[in-house]
Amino acid sequence: MTSMDRRNFVHTTGAAVGAAALAPAILSGRGDQRVRLGIVGVGGRGTSLLELILRRADTDVTAISDIDPAALARAVDLVEQAGRRRPAGYHESEHDYEQLVLRDDVDAVIIATPWRWHAPMAVAAMRAGKRPGVEVPAAVTLAECWDLVNTSEATGVPCMLLENVCYRRDVAAVFRMVREGLFGELVHCRCGYQHDLREIKFHPGAEFGPGAEGEARWRTLHSVKRNGDLYPTHGIGPMATCLGVNAGNRFTVLTSMATKSRGLHQYAVARGGPAHPSARVTFALGDVVTTLIQCAGGETVVVTHDTNLPRPYSLGFRVQGTRGIWMDDGDVIYLEGVSERAHQWEPWAPYQERFDHPLWTRWAERATGAGHGGMDFFVVHAFVESVKRRVPPPIDVYDAAAWSAISELSERSVAEGGEPQAFPDFTRGRWVTRAPAFGLSDAF
Amino acid sequence: MTSMDRRNFVHTTGAAVGAAALAPAILSGRGDQRVRLGIVGVGGRGTSLLELILRRADTDVTAISDIDPAALARAVDLVEQAGRRRPAGYHESEHDYEQLVLRDDVDAVIIATPWRWHAPMAVAAMRAGKRPGVEVPAAVTLAECWDLVNTSEATGVPCMLLENVCYRRDVAAVFRMVREGLFGELVHCRCGYQHDLREIKFHPGAEFGPGAEGEARWRTLHSVKRNGDLYPTHGIGPMATCLGVNAGNRFTVLTSMATKSRGLHQYAVARGGPAHPSARVTFALGDVVTTLIQCAGGETVVVTHDTNLPRPYSLGFRVQGTRGIWMDDGDVIYLEGVSERAHQWEPWAPYQERFDHPLWTRWAERATGAGHGGMDFFVVHAFVESVKRRVPPPIDVYDAAAWSAISELSERSVAEGGEPQAFPDFTRGRWVTRAPAFGLSDAF
Repeated sequence: MTSMDRRNFVHTTGAAVGAAALAPAILSGRGDQRVRLGIVGVGGRGTSLLELILRRADTDVTAISDIDPAALARAVDLVEQAGRRRPAGYHESEHDYEQLVLRDDVDAVIIATPWRWHAPMAVAAMRAGKRPGVEVPAAVTLAECWDLVNTSEATGVPCMLLENVCYRRDVAAVFRMVREGLFGELVHCRCGYQHDLREIKFHPGAEFGPGAEGEARWRTLHSVKRNGDLYPTHGIGPMATCLGVNAGNRFTVLTSMATKSRGLHQYAVARGGPAHPSARVTFALGDVVTTLIQCAGGETVVVTHDTNLPRPYSLGFRVQGTRGIWMDDGDVIYLEGVSERAHQWEPWAPYQERFDHPLWTRWAERATGAGHGGMDFFVVHAFVESVKRRVPPPIDVYDAAAWSAISELSERSVAEGGEPQAFPDFTRGRWVTRAPAFGLSDAF
Repeated sequence: MTSMDRRNFVHTTGAAVGAAALAPAILSGRGDQRVRLGIVGVGGRGTSLLELILRRADTDVTAISDIDPAALARAVDLVEQAGRRRPAGYHESEHDYEQLVLRDDVDAVIIATPWRWHAPMAVAAMRAGKRPGVEVPAAVTLAECWDLVNTSEATGVPCMLLENVCYRRDVAAVFRMVREGLFGELVHCRCGYQHDLREIKFHPGAEFGPGAEGEARWRTLHSVKRNGDLYPTHGIGPMATCLGVNAGNRFTVLTSMATKSRGLHQYAVARGGPAHPSARVTFALGDVVTTLIQCAGGETVVVTHDTNLPRPYSLGFRVQGTRGIWMDDGDVIYLEGVSERAHQWEPWAPYQERFDHPLWTRWAERATGAGHGGMDFFVVHAFVESVKRRVPPPIDVYDAAAWSAISELSERSVAEGGEPQAFPDFTRGRWVTRAPAFGLSDAF
């Protein structure tokens, strides 16, 4: 029996596939199915996902929505240049996506808009019976997390979070090693989003807000208004799959502390001068926000949000169990009884080769050249395949909610001086018996 | 004006030396002074410190106390073998140290006993007018932290914490770089004690408690009874000096979370079998205890205690400011505008050479061969020199209290589900104006 048929999610528009999910012979029989996709948001991220979709023979892009007519036109052109039929375009208003999701020729919707739209758009898609694949984070607030869960349960339409880092090659191999018991019983994990975004939060120069470019148009405002972990999923996603969160485990409580806020102001002054409007803005976001999460299984996770200071990129992963420990900073591992020398790190590389995840072994060639070191291929692949097969996605609405909930819980804890905040149980108790769904085979 | 004469500590038995502390010419004139030391506790650690003391020409060891007659005899022999006069020995009872500290031929007392004795012994020494140099941690409880502070203030006798890691070569260089502004304004630090102590907590085999050997005789009981950061100072000491704690800054609040406890039980079973008495013990200590500390200056510190699982040793340092970041895991650094490639780590080694602390530049030759990579030389040197010169020690009673207080605060937070715990202000408000004392010159 596979995990798929142990999941109690009922998808009203398709039969549960059960063991078929792990049976390539049967699955390949469905290779002729096509998925008709609508895409909402074709800025940098949406365009990148569109390009991956256009590489696939099993997808049609039937409709695209973006309030920026130029971005929309570029995306429509991309589809045509790929020899595909010209998709319908929506750009009249911020709510034009509501028309897109109603179209009969849309089976599923990719959402790659600013954060504030992720949950409302996913909710609209589900209400229209269309599966959303939503970019990270799935929601900004706890209320939105519940909106996603409630809507998915009420409509029977699954919602997938497009968390690409779960498919990073080293992360996927570590996930496999966790499943195979190499680390023993997991005890402690670390992760985060440590990425100097100053050139993205301000662009060009010291600009942000409506007159700026790229994500500086909207993303920076979250740093002005909010103080907490604004972007937890790239880190917590892979750790949650390792820890079996929502499938035998769950996050129970967190505390967060934020440092003072220095980086963004100093950057605005350095780039725009002290008289620049950006230099007179007070940024709420502390430069480093650290969150401690307790799990029902007795594990803890440290999550870091660090986007305002000069620093090399790192998601700061650490997976630690009763038999060993892996860290991506330095790419090192130690496994008791396996590592040759006691108390000494080993390089990760030989383990990568030995424990490469079956997904990568099978699909590496197609992943080559896809965004973010190939991992974007897998997250698109998983979304498209789960839609085609009408099975629950490997990263579902409960994952989307539990991972994204960290943001508001963290903001609350920071505001209350580190006061612990209880996680809602979005599964309403079903985490106890739910089985894992992520990364269990080489299919998707 | 040096920091020394800005410190408001009054040492009743000696004049403040003021600027002399940084004037080698004057200081060298005191080279003929000798310090007469009593040593309490000559197990592994005390013996190691004794050997360093015996290398020095400016010390006499006049009395040694240990309840283990064999350990005492070995220590007394070591003194004689070094061509020194035979010291008096005390081993009659656990309270024999009370006689040692009263001796007229003892100026200062090194305390290297089990943790539970550190504070009472230091208090006894100060009451007798003898300066204690106390091993880490200085205290097990908050009440003991206050005992140290109150006694030092009432008697006017300084108390030094013998935190050797503050003098680790890379740590001292980073400290210098912090003082010189290379990291900009500090924002966030990390540290911890990540050391697989299973072979120390159980020795031999699965033994611990009175019948065991070495630290397994007493240290392991703390893991049976307590759940929190039992051993914070090796990590927090160096970060506290960088952050100016007790000298313009202070720790205000912490939260802690502990994982489940697996490592010690599993080790006891593996070494002693399931029927061994140690295998039937329930250990309170979570395998990984993570503590978040907020500072008055707006910085945060993550402190890790991780001593029950198989893992390579690491104190997990990270010093992060508005201009850059250093981590000892991987020995990497990034300084904006200094590092050649943006967003890319550099190896630490060239910085070690360039920013070697003046203490190391001056004393490296004497430090060679001293314990723990040479750093033990410096902590003994600092203690002896500050006693000789009758100046406050560079790591004082307020540091000892603030750093050691983490243990009970952490235990409380863990017990209360991560509830924030306020740090006592052991300086009673003087942290606002106190000047730093650690690592300011090449003298000690």
